[in-house]
Amino acid sequence: MNEFIAPVDPAKAYRLLNHGPTVLVSARHDGVDNVMAAAWACALDFMPAKLTVVLDKIAKTRELVEQSGVFVIQVPTAAQLRLTHDVGTRSLSDEADKLQRSGVELFRIPGHDLPFVAGCSAWLACRLIPEPHNQSTYDLFIGEVIGAWADTRVFKDGHWHFETADPAWRSLHYIAGGHFYAIGDALDVEVADEK
Amino acid sequence: MNEFIAPVDPAKAYRLLNHGPTVLVSARHDGVDNVMAAAWACALDFMPAKLTVVLDKIAKTRELVEQSGVFVIQVPTAAQLRLTHDVGTRSLSDEADKLQRSGVELFRIPGHDLPFVAGCSAWLACRLIPEPHNQSTYDLFIGEVIGAWADTRVFKDGHWHFETADPAWRSLHYIAGGHFYAIGDALDVEVADEK
Repeated sequence: MNEFIAPVDPAKAYRLLNHGPTVLVSARHDGVDNVMAAAWACALDFMPAKLTVVLDKIAKTRELVEQSGVFVIQVPTAAQLRLTHDVGTRSLSDEADKLQRSGVELFRIPGHDLPFVAGCSAWLACRLIPEPHNQSTYDLFIGEVIGAWADTRVFKDGHWHFETADPAWRSLHYIAGGHFYAIGDALDVEVADEK
Repeated sequence: MNEFIAPVDPAKAYRLLNHGPTVLVSARHDGVDNVMAAAWACALDFMPAKLTVVLDKIAKTRELVEQSGVFVIQVPTAAQLRLTHDVGTRSLSDEADKLQRSGVELFRIPGHDLPFVAGCSAWLACRLIPEPHNQSTYDLFIGEVIGAWADTRVFKDGHWHFETADPAWRSLHYIAGGHFYAIGDALDVEVADEK
């Protein structure tokens, strides 16, 4: 956990996902860690913050989430483009050294027995809210955020600073076939003149 | 329905949402049309395409969705920044002329009795899959996509073309307080060299 990582106000944790980035999902159970990419993750509530994430039945990470009841949703950066694609296409079932081969470095945050992926811009530690019907019918998982952190070089005081941070910090937004977009320019509506 | 709007291959409809844009939700019931903005919309399945969207209990559009069982999710553009913010902050309950005041123009697509918002880049007509527990507990609605269209000036042959289209076509990604980001540069992983 480096010097730039700071807790995020729980009331503002939803902002880490509000712009719809592709995320990394990580989980740990019984000595096994895994990390996968997920484009289908979304904020669900403000306070306590909740989120949804779609985890396919073939995903090893899904098993770890179901077994441990906890997981991390983290926001990867443009600098992690290849890593994000790799953990989204390799499988731990086929390659026991998937994480090393994908260049994943894990780190600890005190108080949470979870695998956090180094180099991301933000992390949301989540407790699974069990919803068996959603999980089995739709592969849809609901998490309640129990801790949120961000790298202050790109998210600080409750706000993203993509417009002033190095472009390597931009979030990734996956489409298909290895094709991503980075988040782009800021666009602001003048709220003061609202009727 | 202008000459640039074309149907999207149902197998590729998920790509219209995969990068996590803020969307407009519209619905019609008993002669009443409404449109709202939603940052919390997400793809849920490939084929048939499904999606989730969070609709707050105070939203008039939610009532119309529950009553009619159908709705449209559409992707607004940077040119619609003010419109998107306006329909997200004004309420039809307070202003009967909300849509006109927000600059919303609706159009028809044959075969669908739904209000489509003109000027967007993509439209997903959805049938509500009733899930009363999700709707009441989480304000979470699931839709199955029954029709998809895009403006071929920015989405064509199953792909977004943000990198070559006019920047006014970029999707919007809301954070909070009137602050949005546009989608940015393309980033590609060379899939051919995958091991």
